[in-house]
Order: sequence, then structure tokens, then C-alpha cells
Amino acid sequence: MTISFDPTNLRALAFDVFGTVVDWRSSIIREGRMLSAAKGLQVDWPAFADAWRAGYAPAMDRTRGAGDVWADIDTLHRQILDELVPRFGLGALSEAELVQLNRVWHRLMPWPDSVGGLNRLRGRYPISTLSNGNVSLLVDMARNAGLPWDCVLSGELIHRYKPDPEVYLMAARLLGCAPHELMLVAAHPSDLRGAQACGLRTAYVHRALEFGPDAPPRPARPEGFDLVAGDFLDLARQLGT
Amino acid sequence: MTISFDPTNLRALAFDVFGTVVDWRSSIIREGRMLSAAKGLQVDWPAFADAWRAGYAPAMDRTRGAGDVWADIDTLHRQILDELVPRFGLGALSEAELVQLNRVWHRLMPWPDSVGGLNRLRGRYPISTLSNGNVSLLVDMARNAGLPWDCVLSGELIHRYKPDPEVYLMAARLLGCAPHELMLVAAHPSDLRGAQACGLRTAYVHRALEFGPDAPPRPARPEGFDLVAGDFLDLARQLGT
Repeated sequence: MTISFDPTNLRALAFDVFGTVVDWRSSIIREGRMLSAAKGLQVDWPAFADAWRAGYAPAMDRTRGAGDVWADIDTLHRQILDELVPRFGLGALSEAELVQLNRVWHRLMPWPDSVGGLNRLRGRYPISTLSNGNVSLLVDMARNAGLPWDCVLSGELIHRYKPDPEVYLMAARLLGCAPHELMLVAAHPSDLRGAQACGLRTAYVHRALEFGPDAPPRPARPEGFDLVAGDFLDLARQLGT
Repeated sequence: MTISFDPTNLRALAFDVFGTVVDWRSSIIREGRMLSAAKGLQVDWPAFADAWRAGYAPAMDRTRGAGDVWADIDTLHRQILDELVPRFGLGALSEAELVQLNRVWHRLMPWPDSVGGLNRLRGRYPISTLSNGNVSLLVDMARNAGLPWDCVLSGELIHRYKPDPEVYLMAARLLGCAPHELMLVAAHPSDLRGAQACGLRTAYVHRALEFGPDAPPRPARPEGFDLVAGDFLDLARQLGT
């Protein structure tokens, strides 16, 4: 039996971005291969992309220590990249090329349904990012990819990273919603559970290829969230938009 | 002799909103007259609009005291509105009608050139609000009026109001700019001087009718700013967008 979600009190949607809206892995591999073609580098770009992303959670954890140790994602991505340079044979890249490579996160491409789905959802609900990416990264990405955000919200605004509860509660407050009037849309159960613990509504979107075609499969329909969708167009259909 | 502004280092534009992008006075008068027509009220709506706006600066000043006395613009607008109810003969309005009237600030209409000009400027530069209006107000307004912001920034994010310097510096930081790479666009010299003191570039836009056709004229071309424009289309032309 399916218990259908009642969207009566829903007033806004907030979206996780990396992996949920944009396909970071394919984007990094593609730009890496363009760099290989231009520079004659031999690099395992899929492994590089996975390693870069794998450094992300530990890097954020380091910002949760005592004192003012918070740093934005551009800075964390660069720290991780610097560790990967010797490991992946990128020593021939100049500083300008490393800066440019680090900004690939500002140019990530959306999943095929993202722009169309967001435009449909936006017809009824204000749509906002709720990302650990910094604001300028999210603005650049939206302009590059045509993501029609009504608002760009980031953990940067309070120097916290999801799943810290302050980030979800900040989003509700700034969007003028009670927590239960805001829904987080994400491809990651841990993020959704963080939102749920703050009283937000949750929609899981299944991004089967986020970690590539050879990654262990993730459940397409995890339990415990208000909605489960195959993509943003399916989410729009379920919300009647 | 005209010294032309060199936009080489310009990377983003931030806009004052009330009066610069939207015509608060005509919008309030229009909604007031609709309320009069529906309810049979006799109200001097132009005087009401001017009184509401005149309460704004003193209300913000009260939030600059010691302790955590900051309140958002929706709250300040309501405090001022409550003072105007007896003075303007609005005692017949219900609480729901007062809530609706207070939200007229979420529905302000743009000046005739605003949407077209913003779309042109946005082709080259990221465009953001930098307003004392709260985020949800700005999001509602943008959705209602078709304002194509790349980012919604507000003094609310740091619980400060312009012209406090922290607000301008926050905008540069969040947009990933040095202060001199960001330009504030505003119809108010005091706002522009606040930005200038923080190192931002400044564009004055002349909104001759902001305070109505009978208000004392303002200088069309004040001294001391990087650019002076007749409207947003003129600004777009001067910036080559």
C-alpha cells in the first residue's frame, strides 16, 4: 500500500546540488579528458574524479573543529586537488591550469531532466539550492547550466556544512517557511535524514549513475521519506506541477 | 569632460531594490485603491504610501541598538502599518486584510525598464539583489515581477541594514569578488556612498518619480559616482551589454 504525500502545506523546495542536480563525475571526467587531449597527459580520470569527491566529506569534517576553521568548498576542493596532483601525475599543470581545473565544480553539467524538471516545479513552488557549495560557485553553475533558481542558499551563509541542523533550519527561516512547509530534494539519504531531523519534508531522487556505471547499486526506493522519485520530471508529476 | 568608467575589472552587479528596481509608491497606491474599491474605504493612499515609507529609516535605526534587537523588514513594515491604521482610517480592516496589505511589499511592480534592463545586464554580469528587504520578500517579488536575479542577497543574512559597511562587504565576499570588482546600482546617493566607502564601484540610476510627481526634484546627474544612468537600459548600454 502506498501512502501518498499530502502537499497541502508545502510552500517551497530546497535542493541538494552536487549529485542531485548536477552530474559531478561525468563533468570532471569530461574536462579531464579535454585537458589530457590538450596537454598529452595520461590520467585515469574516472579514478581521479572519484578520489576528488572522496576527499570531500573528510575535508568538511576538518572544518567542524574548535575555533574559526571553516573554509569554503572552493578552498577544500583545492586542498584535495593539491594532494591528488602527485598521485595522478598532474605535476605538469601550471598554477593557472590548476585554478581552472579546480573551478570545474563551477561548471558541472545538470542531469538530463534537471533543467526541465526545475522549470516545472518552479511553476508552483519557489525553488532554492541548499548546498554545501559556496554561493559564487552555485551562481556560476546556475548561469552556466541554465538552472532557474529563485534563491541561492548555501551552508556558507552560516559557515556550517550539511548535515549540521543549523543549515536546514536556516533555509526554512530565510524562505519564510516553518520547517514542515519546506521540502529537501536530494539523492543522498544522509542529507535527507538531516533535514528530517529538523522537521523538513523530504524527497529522495534516485541518481543511479552518480558514482558511475560500476559503483555498487543504491536502492531505488529507500524507505522513510515523504516522496521517492526517479528524476525531477517524476517529482514534478508527483507534486502535480 | 567626461571621464569614462573602465569596466575591465568589473565582475558582478548588485542592486538596491526598493525604489531602484521596483516602484513601491505606485504599487502601494494601486493596491490601496483596490482595497478602497472593495471595502468602501476613504483613504489618502498617496499620503499613506509616503508615511509608510517614511517610517522605514527610523524603524531600521531602532534595530541598530545594543543587544539582539534586529528584526526583518516584514516585521518593521507591520510595526509601521499598525501605527498608520488609526491615522489613515483603516480600523475596519481585519487582521487577515492587514497581513495581506503588509505583504504588498512582496508584490511591488518593477519600473518599466527594470526587467528588460536586468536581462540585458545579466547577459554579461551576474546580477544580485543587495537589499534591506528580507530574502523571502525578495524571492516572492522576483517571482511575481519576473526579475531574473542570479542571486538574492539581503542584509538579513547578517542581521544588518545598509548603509552599514558589513552588508556591502558581505555581498562582495559571497559573490567571490574583491570589493572593487562589484558595482552597486542604486537610486539613492546615501546607499552608493556606503558602498563606495567599502571600495565598491557605484552606478546611480535616476528614478525621478520614486517619491511621486509632486516630490522635490532630485539631481539627475549627481557627482562622485562611477556611472550615472537614466534607467537600466541606459546602464546596460553604458556597460556594453
